[in-house]
Amino acid sequence: MSDLRIADARVTPVLVEDPPLLNLQGVHQPYTPRAIVEVETEDGVVGLGETYGDDEYLEPLRKVAALLPGRSVASSESLWEIVAGALDASAVGGSLTDDLQARRLFGRQNLTKLHAIVVSAFEVAFLDAMGRSLGLPVHQLLGGKVRDRVDFAGYLFYKWEKHPVAGAPVDDWGQALDPDGVVAQARRMIDQYGFGSLKLKGGVLPPDEEIAATLALREAFPGVPLRLDPNGAWSVDTGTRVAEALRDTVEYLEDPCTGVEAMAEVHRRTGVPLATNMCVTSMREIPEAFRADAVQVVLCDHHFWGGLRATQALARICETFGVGLSMHSNTHLGISLAAMTQAAACAPGHLHACDTHRPWQTDDVITEPHVFRDGALTVSDAPGLGVELDRAALARYHERWRAGDVRSRDDVAAMRVVDPAWTAPSVPRW
Amino acid sequence: MSDLRIADARVTPVLVEDPPLLNLQGVHQPYTPRAIVEVETEDGVVGLGETYGDDEYLEPLRKVAALLPGRSVASSESLWEIVAGALDASAVGGSLTDDLQARRLFGRQNLTKLHAIVVSAFEVAFLDAMGRSLGLPVHQLLGGKVRDRVDFAGYLFYKWEKHPVAGAPVDDWGQALDPDGVVAQARRMIDQYGFGSLKLKGGVLPPDEEIAATLALREAFPGVPLRLDPNGAWSVDTGTRVAEALRDTVEYLEDPCTGVEAMAEVHRRTGVPLATNMCVTSMREIPEAFRADAVQVVLCDHHFWGGLRATQALARICETFGVGLSMHSNTHLGISLAAMTQAAACAPGHLHACDTHRPWQTDDVITEPHVFRDGALTVSDAPGLGVELDRAALARYHERWRAGDVRSRDDVAAMRVVDPAWTAPSVPRW
Repeated sequence: MSDLRIADARVTPVLVEDPPLLNLQGVHQPYTPRAIVEVETEDGVVGLGETYGDDEYLEPLRKVAALLPGRSVASSESLWEIVAGALDASAVGGSLTDDLQARRLFGRQNLTKLHAIVVSAFEVAFLDAMGRSLGLPVHQLLGGKVRDRVDFAGYLFYKWEKHPVAGAPVDDWGQALDPDGVVAQARRMIDQYGFGSLKLKGGVLPPDEEIAATLALREAFPGVPLRLDPNGAWSVDTGTRVAEALRDTVEYLEDPCTGVEAMAEVHRRTGVPLATNMCVTSMREIPEAFRADAVQVVLCDHHFWGGLRATQALARICETFGVGLSMHSNTHLGISLAAMTQAAACAPGHLHACDTHRPWQTDDVITEPHVFRDGALTVSDAPGLGVELDRAALARYHERWRAGDVRSRDDVAAMRVVDPAWTAPSVPRW
Repeated sequence: MSDLRIADARVTPVLVEDPPLLNLQGVHQPYTPRAIVEVETEDGVVGLGETYGDDEYLEPLRKVAALLPGRSVASSESLWEIVAGALDASAVGGSLTDDLQARRLFGRQNLTKLHAIVVSAFEVAFLDAMGRSLGLPVHQLLGGKVRDRVDFAGYLFYKWEKHPVAGAPVDDWGQALDPDGVVAQARRMIDQYGFGSLKLKGGVLPPDEEIAATLALREAFPGVPLRLDPNGAWSVDTGTRVAEALRDTVEYLEDPCTGVEAMAEVHRRTGVPLATNMCVTSMREIPEAFRADAVQVVLCDHHFWGGLRATQALARICETFGVGLSMHSNTHLGISLAAMTQAAACAPGHLHACDTHRPWQTDDVITEPHVFRDGALTVSDAPGLGVELDRAALARYHERWRAGDVRSRDDVAAMRVVDPAWTAPSVPRW
């Protein structure tokens, strides 16, 4: 029998190139931090995880990593208690959680999310190590896949041609600041990857311009499901107006407004389905939102819901309450994309095409980066997550982190480079 | 690597001795049917499952068993589709589902429950086979246990001294038809097994007598959590009256009334927590019941919720909605008790002491029947469920089934032996 006990666990921060993609907060920085987690068993099998690489996550990730030797990768549920202990210790120690709470002003809720984020990174690594050790794909550790391929959506952004700083990485996607630019970007996404659904990140331009871009997409790509996501930027009246304008155009609107009450009101007024990765981001937020019928589609994300089993539970809850499911994406590398695909493979019921930032990231830390075909990925049946760590790439991007000064994702700071007076917009912005 | 493909799957009905325990419907027959499921892998590893043995389950169980060779025990989620196909085929063929629907008059809902029941029996056997093959306890296939021991409740019944038919099996528990009899039964339960909680099956005598028995238990066993379960026998007014009489006496009342509306009303009027294994028995019944605050504790049961993963999902849903969790029991053998214990070990959050009929069953089909210590079972860390099939016992109880004429559990028929005019009482009875 395999020895599933943990001999070592490591956390390696990296910096990943990121194009100048625009959103409500500002613009993506030239580099964004990610953290790569490795959990090695006594047999020398290494399981991989990936999560946010901001400083505020690195400290608890490393603290938890140090607690893992001697434990079994087959007991991932125990991570909830281990991480809670580590975070409480931090709280007692003072620095981490107090600082986090002060900085974000979300109070206790944020500690809950931090808890789930740290659990998730290690849970994925545990499952990968367990699967590799036992010769089973992760999906079979979760009960087995219910689909063989997972559809993803092409993720469109308003975008500058290049970062406004010297020496920043460049890309060949060009500028997209109007309907033509958005349609051209979508055409390339479809030509190159075959995406069958499109999502436009909004909240960047006044709502009428985003309505126009969405209608232009509809005209250019008849029949392709479309989504518009302003990250909660609109008032109830604006959200209502956009929903009515795009009623026959969008599959759903994502987070038109901020908060359960506003979301529920827009849905009540318009009947247009609303999706969220802001209004409902943890189990404790579900009852109120579901009772109010504030969301019709939850965008799951194993990174902040607490891992692949938690995502499976969320999928079951949504199925139970007749709420749709899709998947949220943040900037990610191939380890997370593999984990997202395994989670999606195990989500019961109908799953809308999942978000992915992948086309925007050319860096990767796995030896064979994923390639979308017909807008989808085939679910890997190889042991674990089915990806191999590219140690040379990991070392390269870690060195970039070591030598660089980006220590957190900060779209506001990146925007200040061109607009020194820029601050994070308060919502509703429109 | 182990070969997890299925070589053979078998279903063996058995008859189990059952004492004359009374309930709303009537009385337990001298024998009750159970079905033992064996799933054997290409490596010769056998996984065990156990469920209801009534004829209506045997046909679909056998039909599904025949579809399993060549599939993997690591893909238990696929059972939902396999079983659905088998049941649909039956529906097309005519006999099974039509008959079932006609006989029970529950319409389509009953097919949903049949679906979950059949999935569950095989899911448990898949997990047992997978765990044995990989050297892992079932709980580690579910993410790992969150508790090391599972508390059970002593299950008290109004009871005749013996079955009113010649040649029926006898027991030494004696009669319990009044408070003294119930207290004596409880005392033996506690002395023998150390149970720290007690549940009385009610719905047998007029409510005032059951209130008296519950108060007698409180007096005899101060501090022991008590429950009374009339199986939905009471009207809203009666349920309210009992709840008020036992407000400071019971941990919760189980199914005082039938249906979401009546349950919600009793809780609204009294504030006494209500548990259920009747009002909410499948995922689809959750939203309405939770919205109405009709139940404060769900009694999960892997047999009819669809297996151990479904039970885990239910536990997560209950935790999310702030609804308590305990476990329902039907007459069972050691395979099911092992499965119940593994499921309970993985249920997140607080778990009230679980129900078990075990003290009433002296027959078993495992080599080392469970023994309660301090009212609890230690969670097995042995591979799979941690129990071994006693083939001689299986053969003996199967021969009893073959030679006997009991083909379904029928508490009404058993009562007709002494009361030829007896029919299943319509509710509310009181």
